[in-house]
This record gives sequence, C-alpha cells and structure tokens, in this order.
Amino acid sequence: MPPRIVELRRHVLKKNDELAAELRRRFAAARLLVVNLVSGPGTGKTSWLEKTLTELRARGLRPAALVGDPETDFDAQRLQRSGAPVRQISTRGLCHLDADMVANHLDAWDLSTLDFLFIENVGNLVCTASYDLGESLRVACLSVTEGEDKPAKYPSLFNSADLALLTKIDLAQACDFNAAAARQFLNDVRPGIPLLETSAKTGLGMEPWLNLLVTHQAQVKNHPSTKTEGN
Amino acid sequence: MPPRIVELRRHVLKKNDELAAELRRRFAAARLLVVNLVSGPGTGKTSWLEKTLTELRARGLRPAALVGDPETDFDAQRLQRSGAPVRQISTRGLCHLDADMVANHLDAWDLSTLDFLFIENVGNLVCTASYDLGESLRVACLSVTEGEDKPAKYPSLFNSADLALLTKIDLAQACDFNAAAARQFLNDVRPGIPLLETSAKTGLGMEPWLNLLVTHQAQVKNHPSTKTEGN
Repeated sequence: MPPRIVELRRHVLKKNDELAAELRRRFAAARLLVVNLVSGPGTGKTSWLEKTLTELRARGLRPAALVGDPETDFDAQRLQRSGAPVRQISTRGLCHLDADMVANHLDAWDLSTLDFLFIENVGNLVCTASYDLGESLRVACLSVTEGEDKPAKYPSLFNSADLALLTKIDLAQACDFNAAAARQFLNDVRPGIPLLETSAKTGLGMEPWLNLLVTHQAQVKNHPSTKTEGN
Repeated sequence: MPPRIVELRRHVLKKNDELAAELRRRFAAARLLVVNLVSGPGTGKTSWLEKTLTELRARGLRPAALVGDPETDFDAQRLQRSGAPVRQISTRGLCHLDADMVANHLDAWDLSTLDFLFIENVGNLVCTASYDLGESLRVACLSVTEGEDKPAKYPSLFNSADLALLTKIDLAQACDFNAAAARQFLNDVRPGIPLLETSAKTGLGMEPWLNLLVTHQAQVKNHPSTKTEGN
C-alpha cells in the first residue's frame, strides 16, 4: 500500500479503537455480554443466531441483535422472528462494521434491560478482523463447505477470535470435509482456541454454545464494576 | 466514510483504472483472453479452475493462471497440477487484487505464447468488485452453500460481472437450495446476465463453460488490433 494510505488506515483504526473502548466501558456498565460474530458470507451465522436468540429467550434471558450487511434488511427480518429486539445496519456497500456504526444503532435501546447483544458482522474474512466493536467475545465461524484451509489463508480473522464455530457440520460428509485438518489449520494460527462443532439444521452444538454464553454472561454480571447505565 | 477517506479512495481507484487500461491494451495486443474470477471465500473457484486449465490444455490450448490470497500458496500448488504456468499473488493480508499486483506478476511471462490468463481473486464479495484488473471477462461465482440472497446483499460484485457460475450444484439438495430464487436475486441486480450451473465434482457445466471461453478467445484472437507484444 502507498505510505499515505497506510498512515490514513492507521488513523482510522486508532479512532475506531478509541470508540470501541468507549463502547466496551458502556457495555460493562450495563452488564451486557457483547458477541461479535465474524465469518465469510454464507456460513450460516444468521440461522445459528436466530436459534440462539430463540433459545435464550426460552430460558428467560434477554438477548438483542445488530446485523450488518452491505445491502438489504433480510437478516434483520429473519432474526426478528425470534421475538428479540433486532436492528439492521446497512453499510451501504462497505465491507465491515465499525464501532461508530454500532454506537449509532444503540440509541433508544436501554442496555440495562438486556443480557446479551449479538453483533452479526458483514460476511467478509478479511476486513472485519481489524475493527474492534467493543465486544467481550469475538466468535469466528468457519463452514465445512468453505474448505479446511481458510484459517491459514485468512489468519487475521481467526487469530483475533476468542472462539470458533465449525458450522453446517451436517454437510461435512457431502463436502468430504476433513475436520482434523481444519482443527490443525486453526490451531496453527490461534493455538488453543476452543472450537465447537455446530449445525443449525440438527441443533448440534447448541447446548454447549448456550452454556458457554450463559457462563460468560454471569462473569460480566458479577464483575465488580459500578453499574451506571440505566440505573 | 469521512470525506478524506472518500477522496483518497477515489484517487486509488482512478490510479487502478489507469493501470488496468494499460493492462487491457497489453492483453489485447497479445491476443490473450483474461478472465477475473471473483466470489466469496470457499465457493470452489480453485477446484473449478484446476479442471478448466486441465481441459483447455487437453484441447491443445495454452492457459495460465494468477491466484490471489491474503496468505499461503496453497492454491498455486493445486493449480500447478494442471501443468499450466501458475503464479501465486500473496496480498499480505489485503482484501483484493489490484492492477498493479497483476502487472508485477506478469514479468518474464511471454504473453504471446498464451491463449488464456485466469486471475483468481481473493475470496471477498465486497472489495474485489471495485478493482478492474484489465480483464475481458469478469466471472462471479455463487455457491449453492452460501444461500440464494447473496446477489441482493452484495450487488456491486454481481452487477459488475459478465457471467455468473452457480457452483457446487451437487450439494443443492443437501442445502435446500432454491435455484429459481437465486436466479431471481441475480437478475434483479444484473438483468440478463448468463448463469451456468456447475459442479467441479461431477463436471456439470464444464462443456458449455469451455465452449464459452473458446468462443470469447476466438473473438480476441480475430480482433483487428495490431499484435505488438512478443512479435
């Protein structure tokens, strides 16, 4: 990249980091677990998230979701079927969400009435990796239909994640998917990252995923910071 | 986007367009059909391209390939099994190929000894759309595993394409894929675009694809421009 672009990019990312830090303080004050879901397009983030919202609500918990796409509000429409509050962020062609877009879509939501905020990022294995959204948990989804080597080819996204979901496991056989190879590629770029095998179709992996979310949320809830928002 | 970023982005794209125009003149002079393959990650571009290179060579034609990824040379290794000349472009984390990267990887290739140059772009449904690489034919791949609505969500990529390949059609049933819906979404953003149903696994679509390539190549070959490169 030309030096002027590199410099400007640094400036943009620095500004984003500052905004994300502000958001993180705000989320912590509201005792809200914020999850940033990142992946390539079409890995099944929306299907998995719709089920997650439904299941959390069935347990008496209070999730909400923001969903980003370059165009359309299709995903927000799907997620709203869960009954959870959902907002679409249209990036108008841009390739990622940033902290500013997230902040602009929180207005008029009382965060203290929520337990979880899921942010479904734009489907993009490159650009989403650089933008902190103030999340507590970054979850990278890898679909069995994409091929085992994606973590090696797109390391920034996977090595910035806290957890990986291997999605569409019901299609593994039809795709000749080699799960051991995928695990190896993932561990090479992000040693020790937890990996959950999941299928939105069969429900595989939903139980450990919900338990993990609830455990993380309890940690956020019991953190000895002062609850300032909405009180 | 902040105005300074918008302005700089325009400048970068203008510069790319100038370089791409130069490349296009160079390719035309060498009577070379250049195909830019764009899609999200994991749609099967490499598998399809490996078969394409093999089949074209079996017909006595002379294809070559450049392949872009943020990291690794896995795809170049796979494509080289076809026997065609292949070069990997590592973008070092960048989300797209540009005309400059293509130009830098043509050195020492005598273009007049080739009939086809395939450029497999980085797997990215957003950023690759804006960068002209001097190609004659832009081919957008949409996999049945990604969902039917991708053209609506990522319109820039599909409305800048000359042809669309619907890939992994062998998995259509397993994915509950609705081909009619996908065609409708595609036609909404790019009315009249030809769409080929393909499967690298079964070979479906390979024959019409090769015929289409050969027809386009003949047009390039017979174009009344002066052949200047390599003569």
